[in-house]
Amino acid sequence: MAPVSFLDRTANIITDSESTRSQITLGQYVFERLLSCGTRTVFGVPGDFNLSLLEHMYDEEIENQGLKWVGTCNELNAAYAADGYSRYTNNIGCVITTFGVGELSALNGLAGAFAEDVKVLHIVGVTPSKFHTDAVVSHHNVHHLVPAPKNSNFEAPLHRVYHDMVKDRISCSTEFLDNLETACDQIDKVISDIFRHSKPGYIFIPADFADKLVDPVNLFAMPTINLDMVLSGNVFDERRIQIASDLLLQLIYKSKAPAVIGDVLCDRFGCTNQLREFVQKTQMWNFSSMMGRSILDESKPTFRGVYNGSESESQVSSIIQNCDLILHFGAIRNEMNTGHYSFSFSPNSTIVEIHPDYFKIYDSLSGKKTHIEGFPLKSFLQTVIECLDVQKLNFGYPDVVKKQAASISYDPDSPVTQSNLQLVFPKCLNPGDIFVTETGSFQFAVRDFVFPSNLKYISQGFYLSIGMALPAALGIGCGMVDYPRQHINEVENTVPKDYIPRLVLTEGDGAAQMTIQELSSFLRYNIPLEIFIWNNDGYTVERAIKGPTRAYNDIMPWNWTKILHALGDISETKTQNCKIETFGQLSKHLNALKLNDNRATIKLLEVKLERMDIPEQLKIMAKACRHT
Amino acid sequence: MAPVSFLDRTANIITDSESTRSQITLGQYVFERLLSCGTRTVFGVPGDFNLSLLEHMYDEEIENQGLKWVGTCNELNAAYAADGYSRYTNNIGCVITTFGVGELSALNGLAGAFAEDVKVLHIVGVTPSKFHTDAVVSHHNVHHLVPAPKNSNFEAPLHRVYHDMVKDRISCSTEFLDNLETACDQIDKVISDIFRHSKPGYIFIPADFADKLVDPVNLFAMPTINLDMVLSGNVFDERRIQIASDLLLQLIYKSKAPAVIGDVLCDRFGCTNQLREFVQKTQMWNFSSMMGRSILDESKPTFRGVYNGSESESQVSSIIQNCDLILHFGAIRNEMNTGHYSFSFSPNSTIVEIHPDYFKIYDSLSGKKTHIEGFPLKSFLQTVIECLDVQKLNFGYPDVVKKQAASISYDPDSPVTQSNLQLVFPKCLNPGDIFVTETGSFQFAVRDFVFPSNLKYISQGFYLSIGMALPAALGIGCGMVDYPRQHINEVENTVPKDYIPRLVLTEGDGAAQMTIQELSSFLRYNIPLEIFIWNNDGYTVERAIKGPTRAYNDIMPWNWTKILHALGDISETKTQNCKIETFGQLSKHLNALKLNDNRATIKLLEVKLERMDIPEQLKIMAKACRHT
Repeated sequence: MAPVSFLDRTANIITDSESTRSQITLGQYVFERLLSCGTRTVFGVPGDFNLSLLEHMYDEEIENQGLKWVGTCNELNAAYAADGYSRYTNNIGCVITTFGVGELSALNGLAGAFAEDVKVLHIVGVTPSKFHTDAVVSHHNVHHLVPAPKNSNFEAPLHRVYHDMVKDRISCSTEFLDNLETACDQIDKVISDIFRHSKPGYIFIPADFADKLVDPVNLFAMPTINLDMVLSGNVFDERRIQIASDLLLQLIYKSKAPAVIGDVLCDRFGCTNQLREFVQKTQMWNFSSMMGRSILDESKPTFRGVYNGSESESQVSSIIQNCDLILHFGAIRNEMNTGHYSFSFSPNSTIVEIHPDYFKIYDSLSGKKTHIEGFPLKSFLQTVIECLDVQKLNFGYPDVVKKQAASISYDPDSPVTQSNLQLVFPKCLNPGDIFVTETGSFQFAVRDFVFPSNLKYISQGFYLSIGMALPAALGIGCGMVDYPRQHINEVENTVPKDYIPRLVLTEGDGAAQMTIQELSSFLRYNIPLEIFIWNNDGYTVERAIKGPTRAYNDIMPWNWTKILHALGDISETKTQNCKIETFGQLSKHLNALKLNDNRATIKLLEVKLERMDIPEQLKIMAKACRHT
Repeated sequence: MAPVSFLDRTANIITDSESTRSQITLGQYVFERLLSCGTRTVFGVPGDFNLSLLEHMYDEEIENQGLKWVGTCNELNAAYAADGYSRYTNNIGCVITTFGVGELSALNGLAGAFAEDVKVLHIVGVTPSKFHTDAVVSHHNVHHLVPAPKNSNFEAPLHRVYHDMVKDRISCSTEFLDNLETACDQIDKVISDIFRHSKPGYIFIPADFADKLVDPVNLFAMPTINLDMVLSGNVFDERRIQIASDLLLQLIYKSKAPAVIGDVLCDRFGCTNQLREFVQKTQMWNFSSMMGRSILDESKPTFRGVYNGSESESQVSSIIQNCDLILHFGAIRNEMNTGHYSFSFSPNSTIVEIHPDYFKIYDSLSGKKTHIEGFPLKSFLQTVIECLDVQKLNFGYPDVVKKQAASISYDPDSPVTQSNLQLVFPKCLNPGDIFVTETGSFQFAVRDFVFPSNLKYISQGFYLSIGMALPAALGIGCGMVDYPRQHINEVENTVPKDYIPRLVLTEGDGAAQMTIQELSSFLRYNIPLEIFIWNNDGYTVERAIKGPTRAYNDIMPWNWTKILHALGDISETKTQNCKIETFGQLSKHLNALKLNDNRATIKLLEVKLERMDIPEQLKIMAKACRHT
């Protein structure tokens, strides 16, 4: 269904004042637009073809609005950081690189954002426009650009080769600016599309365009572009929302044991609060998907666990089997988020999938399917909440035996193991903290953590690119500076006003080696961090799948507690580094971190684990991964 | 011109013994084939979809042949290392990754190899074959794979999406194995193509294929695949070589002042020795292109410098202007290698470009052009050498005033500067050393170094991806272990038999931060290295172009002499680290390194330079790069 374009809707609004508006540079336009959308920090690396754009960050108008540049050690890390910034703020994370060398280095970060529906804008500085228009120079092989595949001494290189690689593959919207008349519209189109689809987009800007003058009409016509605006731009039918809402409510009123599954697109499409309100009002049993962790308040008694098909905790599977209505909000289907496509509900149940693009009812008994397309999830949820009559609810949940909290009685001198770590680690997290986990063995254990309220959990749960979490945490930390406490529902009052949320990151040693240099940026930009390095001597996830003792799963043993000293804490006063080998040391440190008010430093904790100590949850996944 | 395929030529040779041949696994085939081509070390990172392939490195037949695995800290570094391995050995550098996360991280390394004609094979482990054939599972969104751009809950992902991104863009040959019957042929086709075009190729291998049995007929039919074999596979005409050779010799005999320009494709297409022999026999004046450095013996009196159009040293430009015949061997035209397309010769001269794909004569006076295509450079050069009658040479070179070696008389307590560095640094290089420079300010100064004989210079001179040189040096170091002294012309006898060549790497600090973790692999795999870090406090090349004082050109100051301690030299006994701030310290250390026989350690020298100290040579380039 084609939405009405913003540009169409607004094109004629401001024509009157056109003669009085002064032109601005395209570079200024880019940063004005980003700021207007809530992007206050941009990430990247300078390069020959983006310098002229970067210069406009220092335009008075831009500097006055407080735009921040965070230069990362390399471009992949910049892309990861932009991804993290967006995951935290739900605004656009922006990465700026030079074309070729920088852009391609960042590509895997963009692919990850695409796979996990994250709003990242990649601005690529390309050769000046003369290279695209002048027949002589367009034949030149320019540095950072791959030459023509054949006869490159005579054939011109394809100046849009990198554009063609990403378009419609890892980018929902891709514009190569080649006309100043349309440049601002093209920029706004990509930004609108990013919000609309919650996927990455690309803008390729010729190096000479940054200083060229453009008409800033769009900034007046659309002072901002954001999620709500983009969604309300869809041609949707209030009546159809009402019909869908009525349908849903009838199912709810009829149900004895409904279940909500909160999934990741609720977060991406900005309706986490609505979903929480819905759950709060109905007191429905609720579950989280693997990728939807921390969208629902896990500390509430109605929260029943993480549902992941046959890879769930057994108690969770059996509870959900007793439900007669499944309301799956913001559903994303992929093998990690569906327990390898093993979701299975009661044969008497009705399953409703509510997705930003569709509303779908499946009646297991009759096999009847209802499918409605094209209205925004958030408006729909709001309508449901408004129309809900709690008097008509008639739930009769069976009694469930509460899972006993495992008692922790380890010898303080015993080594740290994945199993005692799982028991003690979650207790160190406070309401309101940000908890980031890297792809790795420990990530699978997190499935069974019960998070405190208002904790935000961030992890790349499907694409699984190791090395992502550390630079992503940098972006998250920058987001926390730009939007402190944004993730906290202040109505619920579970996080004291003076509590400064912690940024807690856990990393495997193999993953940490991938992108370790970015730790130095936490120092450079004063981003407080607690980082746990699980030193289990290599790629334990891979060992679980194949080659447990093979050299290919080994890594070089590093001197982890000296890394920050090498990467910039020369005086060794800005960071705290320690090595943990026993359960007693671990407990002591976790407790100290939980209570510590000093958020100004970077704390690195190296935790020694056995190389073949594999969480039970990972063993199930590893079995699914053994392909041969 | 279509070459006759190996497979066509050999398909029927071994059919007799087919019944007695035992099948081998595809995994074994891959490594047997690589070994047969001279690739003795492979680089990469394990991942879910390549483990089953990696296992076959431990097959008895493979282990017995001494195949080595070098696991790098991340995949981009693996690609760079494979590139370095190939640049040194002129064999295929192989990188193995898992698809998506690993493969895309490596992509920029492959693009650089494509831009600079380097033989890199990227083997990508992909989802098992059932995902490509079974309608149900092929609809599943698998981790590491980007989902369909739209409706990804219902539309199947494109399993070949990454294949489609690289094919015919950064890969000269791309095969996705989907049929065991043709798999070996597909593998051999990619390998042949890599040699034929001296460009990277890709093979995508489903995870379950590694253990499947195949007929190893090709290994018997073609016990090896290499450059000579691939080139002789071309349909070329001995007669046309003879015609071209006669044409060339007539021009040479007529010439009073011919000039040879040795360019990079002589190296890539294996005819460096032939070119040297040609120069030696004719005693022609010879020059190097920017990218062709160290192909010719720069210590010889007939070597007249580096020609790079208007960006040459002025003396070199004026010498070449006096030449009436320009023989440009192995020419690659790009902006860096042609002084931004500014090559300019005498109006009376004849210019001959001898390229692996064509032979082209341009007569400046008459404007007449002769163009012959399709014979191998090496065979051509051999024919020219054989037919050459030195009695007919009739050169009358004008006298040239030898450039005075600048005297070095700096105060030992004065700071190190780009200008005193340029004077003293080349003196530390010995005949036979390997000298690797990172893209950066110092790289431009290297233009004016005169290298000792049999030194091999390696630098990414066109694509210019900073961060490349350090992991590339790892690959070079591995190549030096596999093929010690391979680059040394033992006939010339300029390198003592017992001299162990040094691996000398120079890096800017900004570039070094990009890929620093790979330093740990030198420790892990015992690769001796001398690394100079030019600590000039940020991206000086960019400062030269724009924003000299802007924060975007700053980096975090690191504790360089502690990096190796953090990355694995825990006891601080395996490495030597020092900080150099004065010219006196620099001279002392350079001299010690030159004379030092201890090649077993890793030596890191941090050299402090002023942030705006820019070599003169870079200023010219920077001017060309200021696009706005």
